[in-house]
Amino acid sequence: MSLRVASGKSASGEDALIARYFRPLATDPGAFGLDDDAAALRPDGSDIVVTTDAIVEGVHFLPDDPPDTIARKALRVNLSDLAAKGAIPAGFVLTLALRHAEEAWLKPFAAALGEDAVQFACPLLGGDTVSTPGPLMVSVTAFGQVPPGRMVHRSGAKPGDRVMVTGTIGDAALGLAILRGGKVHAAASDGAARDMLIGRYRVPQPRVAMAKIVRDHASASMDVSDGLAGDLAKLCGVSGVSAVIDLPSVPLSEAARDLVRRGIVGRETLIAGGDDYEIMCTLTEDHVEAFVQSAREAGIAVSSIGRVIAGGAVPKFIDGNGAEIVLERLSYSHF
Amino acid sequence: MSLRVASGKSASGEDALIARYFRPLATDPGAFGLDDDAAALRPDGSDIVVTTDAIVEGVHFLPDDPPDTIARKALRVNLSDLAAKGAIPAGFVLTLALRHAEEAWLKPFAAALGEDAVQFACPLLGGDTVSTPGPLMVSVTAFGQVPPGRMVHRSGAKPGDRVMVTGTIGDAALGLAILRGGKVHAAASDGAARDMLIGRYRVPQPRVAMAKIVRDHASASMDVSDGLAGDLAKLCGVSGVSAVIDLPSVPLSEAARDLVRRGIVGRETLIAGGDDYEIMCTLTEDHVEAFVQSAREAGIAVSSIGRVIAGGAVPKFIDGNGAEIVLERLSYSHF
Repeated sequence: MSLRVASGKSASGEDALIARYFRPLATDPGAFGLDDDAAALRPDGSDIVVTTDAIVEGVHFLPDDPPDTIARKALRVNLSDLAAKGAIPAGFVLTLALRHAEEAWLKPFAAALGEDAVQFACPLLGGDTVSTPGPLMVSVTAFGQVPPGRMVHRSGAKPGDRVMVTGTIGDAALGLAILRGGKVHAAASDGAARDMLIGRYRVPQPRVAMAKIVRDHASASMDVSDGLAGDLAKLCGVSGVSAVIDLPSVPLSEAARDLVRRGIVGRETLIAGGDDYEIMCTLTEDHVEAFVQSAREAGIAVSSIGRVIAGGAVPKFIDGNGAEIVLERLSYSHF
Repeated sequence: MSLRVASGKSASGEDALIARYFRPLATDPGAFGLDDDAAALRPDGSDIVVTTDAIVEGVHFLPDDPPDTIARKALRVNLSDLAAKGAIPAGFVLTLALRHAEEAWLKPFAAALGEDAVQFACPLLGGDTVSTPGPLMVSVTAFGQVPPGRMVHRSGAKPGDRVMVTGTIGDAALGLAILRGGKVHAAASDGAARDMLIGRYRVPQPRVAMAKIVRDHASASMDVSDGLAGDLAKLCGVSGVSAVIDLPSVPLSEAARDLVRRGIVGRETLIAGGDDYEIMCTLTEDHVEAFVQSAREAGIAVSSIGRVIAGGAVPKFIDGNGAEIVLERLSYSHF
């Protein structure tokens, strides 16, 4: 790990720069002020839930995205995983592959990362900074705590369970489409709606407040990051079940609904878009009421979108008339 | 995390390829067969030591290095950190940034990673695979266990302590010099010596067997990865001390000694080279004998190279006559 000042002659200006901006984030005693080769976690009887997600320039964020939004996205995509697993954030380590260590980039990056670390009570524990001639890459490994054996899996969905999702779906995919230009860009003329959609792409809202609620109620859970349709297929695959989803019940923002109404984009495109970072989970029927009530108290909207059924088929999406909708693609794939 | 097969239509051939080769490595029950978004660690009262190190094509390994050596290096540089901290390996997560998911590369990469995971009892717990248009990058976050509060720090060195180092220093830097061509390449005509030096660059030998010995005896410890001189300066800086090192006592392999004798390379260059992945630690005098004895029983050579002294100066290196040697540079720096 080398997010630290090298003492002695080898301390280059860039090493000092990195230490100057990242050391203030290492508030946890187990980070040892970033002065050591490793961090230490003391879990006090909990299981440590570990998740790792990397974001790459040109793939997960755009070359001209502001450094503060890149920092927030890198951490938040991991916090989203922890929340879906029912885990309370405990800390993270960071690998930063940079072409140059520039103050103008590092300063806002570290400041935003620090704000998020405080907001989500997830301190920086350590990291590694490497130079790369290629695209910028930010890799985060985040740690959360759950009582022993209580991590919520993808594998627990049973026929009859309700399928629920937090927030709204498809906004981030629309935000990316706006940033890329094209027909969505041309159609999204309302400034506030545009900004909201772009914001949803650049800065996900991890549902950290749902962690305990998911743990208390869900039979299976995952975060929606590669498209709701594809991610549901994964959850069903691991659980050995299928599902029927009522497409009109998939929650959309007002901005997304407007674009659907005007025929700019179809609902089936939105459920195959990526970067939602909402939680999708399944619940036995007797948990639905308490789940909805607890989510409401936490200030997070949740929607019932369908039901788990027996079988090994890819989940079905039906329209308002009960007719099946054939999807061209289920999700975003890296390769 | 997505080192897994996506079920359903979105499962591309490449996703399946990744799952086919990596799933067999996920032998720990906490890896959930790579079928989930996260792994779980159950530490049983231990502290979890966390370290993260990334290796980048063209920076830490060469574009034509074989995939099996890249895999081993990525894991071993992290195991080296754990050993220096006194921690017993518990598992790791992997972020792989690839241009393409090719069977010809993934198969030997995963096979070698799996062999090392078994050899060092450090199973794969999860990971993330992302596509990149840039250089290949392998980022590993590794976990180790120590009894509560027993991680060995950089910060414990005291005046009067002995400075010890495992193995030999400078071989990897010579191996890299051979691979790059130039005068070391021309001079290293002995095939076996050449192969040994290149092997030391490509595949470090993490001193995992030293973990408990370091924990039982060292006052401060770190692994030597960026050059012995620079790394010692870091350890001294954090400990608030200085050191005097007897340069002829710094252990060299027979191949390195031969190149020094023939005037091809100087000892001062070898102690500023990188990639040694040996353990450097400090010991109070009353621990030296037991430390040396335990290391011998573990089959690992250790050498006494100098002593910690009071003060804040950069560590001094003296030649066989007690004269100070001025170093041009202390270590490799990324930026």
